[in-house]
Amino acid sequence: MKSRQWLLKREPQGEMSAEDFTCREIELDPASLKDGELLVRHLAFLCTPAMRGWMSSNRSKFTPAINPGDPIIAFAGSVVEASRHPDFPVGARITCFGAWQERQIINPALCEGRLVADDTTLIEAVGVLSMNMMTGYFGLTRVGQPKVGDTLVVSGAAGSTGSAVMQIGKLLGCRTIGIAGGKAKCDWLRDTCKADAVIDYKSENVSARLAELCPNGVDIFYDNVGGDILQAVVDNIAKFGRIILCGQIAGYDSTAPSPGPKNMMQLVYGSVKMQGFLMHDYMADWPEAIATLSGWLREGRIHHREDIREGFENIPDIYAALFHGDNNGTLIAVTDRAACDKTA
Amino acid sequence: MKSRQWLLKREPQGEMSAEDFTCREIELDPASLKDGELLVRHLAFLCTPAMRGWMSSNRSKFTPAINPGDPIIAFAGSVVEASRHPDFPVGARITCFGAWQERQIINPALCEGRLVADDTTLIEAVGVLSMNMMTGYFGLTRVGQPKVGDTLVVSGAAGSTGSAVMQIGKLLGCRTIGIAGGKAKCDWLRDTCKADAVIDYKSENVSARLAELCPNGVDIFYDNVGGDILQAVVDNIAKFGRIILCGQIAGYDSTAPSPGPKNMMQLVYGSVKMQGFLMHDYMADWPEAIATLSGWLREGRIHHREDIREGFENIPDIYAALFHGDNNGTLIAVTDRAACDKTA
Repeated sequence: MKSRQWLLKREPQGEMSAEDFTCREIELDPASLKDGELLVRHLAFLCTPAMRGWMSSNRSKFTPAINPGDPIIAFAGSVVEASRHPDFPVGARITCFGAWQERQIINPALCEGRLVADDTTLIEAVGVLSMNMMTGYFGLTRVGQPKVGDTLVVSGAAGSTGSAVMQIGKLLGCRTIGIAGGKAKCDWLRDTCKADAVIDYKSENVSARLAELCPNGVDIFYDNVGGDILQAVVDNIAKFGRIILCGQIAGYDSTAPSPGPKNMMQLVYGSVKMQGFLMHDYMADWPEAIATLSGWLREGRIHHREDIREGFENIPDIYAALFHGDNNGTLIAVTDRAACDKTA
Repeated sequence: MKSRQWLLKREPQGEMSAEDFTCREIELDPASLKDGELLVRHLAFLCTPAMRGWMSSNRSKFTPAINPGDPIIAFAGSVVEASRHPDFPVGARITCFGAWQERQIINPALCEGRLVADDTTLIEAVGVLSMNMMTGYFGLTRVGQPKVGDTLVVSGAAGSTGSAVMQIGKLLGCRTIGIAGGKAKCDWLRDTCKADAVIDYKSENVSARLAELCPNGVDIFYDNVGGDILQAVVDNIAKFGRIILCGQIAGYDSTAPSPGPKNMMQLVYGSVKMQGFLMHDYMADWPEAIATLSGWLREGRIHHREDIREGFENIPDIYAALFHGDNNGTLIAVTDRAACDKTA
């Protein structure tokens, strides 16, 4: 059995490009499956900024590594085609950390393989109920520790993680302020995600607007961006403020590391906590989180958007679009759209 | 009754100087005491780097303010000379946040006035059992949350706060590594404070030495310094590491704010917590902390050094010495040495 497979050709430098990847064909032998293993067909791949970091030679030792010549690790929605695991029969739909290939032999115990609930499509399982939402949920609740009445500011607020945090924060009783680029994103945050206020960083002075909107300071900042926006929030942080460091997309697409805030004494005097985290720190809590979040989702209390693009051969171009800001919702690359839209 | 009083003449710029202060004489009328007030004579003043921040126009809104023309707020050891407060009779010895003046009318409820225990000298009350030690104790225990076996790194480790943290960390079961400047300080840390390892930042490459000494990373970093040393520890931090931001003395003596670490993604990937705090956040726990620490002190388990200098007229020069690194122990300015060395 043959499968196409994308590999990293070279370490991405500066702007992410489809030229950083190369495709080859590999052989898979279903008869070679060991106990506990599955042969799966991947139908959907989530495109996340985190993967960009995994491809960087500057990466931390705490993160997965994708070196030149390696397959591309990606959160995938898949269907089981052959199985030597009793919990994952042929035909079962799963999510896992797979690779950019059409088919793959995996061990679900080693790649976070999980069954998808019957009422959930693979698009939902890979999109709204997956990494971005979980990252937002764990970051906000575990690191941010929101209290009713807290002022919550989110950067990259119209993104998949950002908009999840905005809405979860609202459900938990926070006053929410979203920072995003452009009128369309800001309108969507205000009208659909029920943001209490929005700041368009492309046309407004973020620090001045925060000072206006938050006379008592920012209690929680969920930072997807870093750089100047992090600095602006540090300048407006409340006593005992919490800064949740999720990503620093301002730094991903450049070879220079993303700088920290300029005035560290502000953190001392304000007794401010700034804390990084990875979704993986909380994997044991994934089932609880899925239950909570899919409940809110079925009640219509979480809005989300997917930008679904097709074609195995197009995955690198689809992925690169994430860094050009031209996606409109959670970016998902699919190889079989119809199969992805079905529930069980 | 007359009292001399030091005022801030101008905002200190660059190197701290005695020229930044001016002295005048004021009148105090013991007959003017209101209910709850005391007239005290200040005998000892603790010199701390924090006061430098209070004098800066760049100060945070969360910190006391000393503007040009204002008296100088300082932690003082004092004796009550007139009283309209039943808990603080004439002759009682107290600590409080007073001012650089010979005598002062204070309300102990408004300036953290506390009685000094009978077995404690004013030097001890203002030195080893006061702000620096409390800052270290609360920072390490509340923010750092040490576990037995953790590797604890301390910058400014030979200072009053740093050496307290080194010894408290050791008592709590941590492996301790102190960073200090020069052989004498490093020897003292190793021989007297029982540091497991020391790094002389003046003659060694801090990052390389940390990598050698901490192959599994730094679990807790108590940072008194900031700047390049903070960067070196961030580069060597362990998963779930905790960085306690106490002071950033690298930045105090300059007009430029102290920069944060350069690579914020290291904090994300490592799930690292970086948290500022002020001793004042934990004032309610002061009696508990004093009990614990004076117990250790009486058992000979906490070593400390004071650098006691005399003369009310010399206070600005004594204070400025703190920033020239030529003090040898906790710097205390006294107006009556003999009275300060007595217990009750």
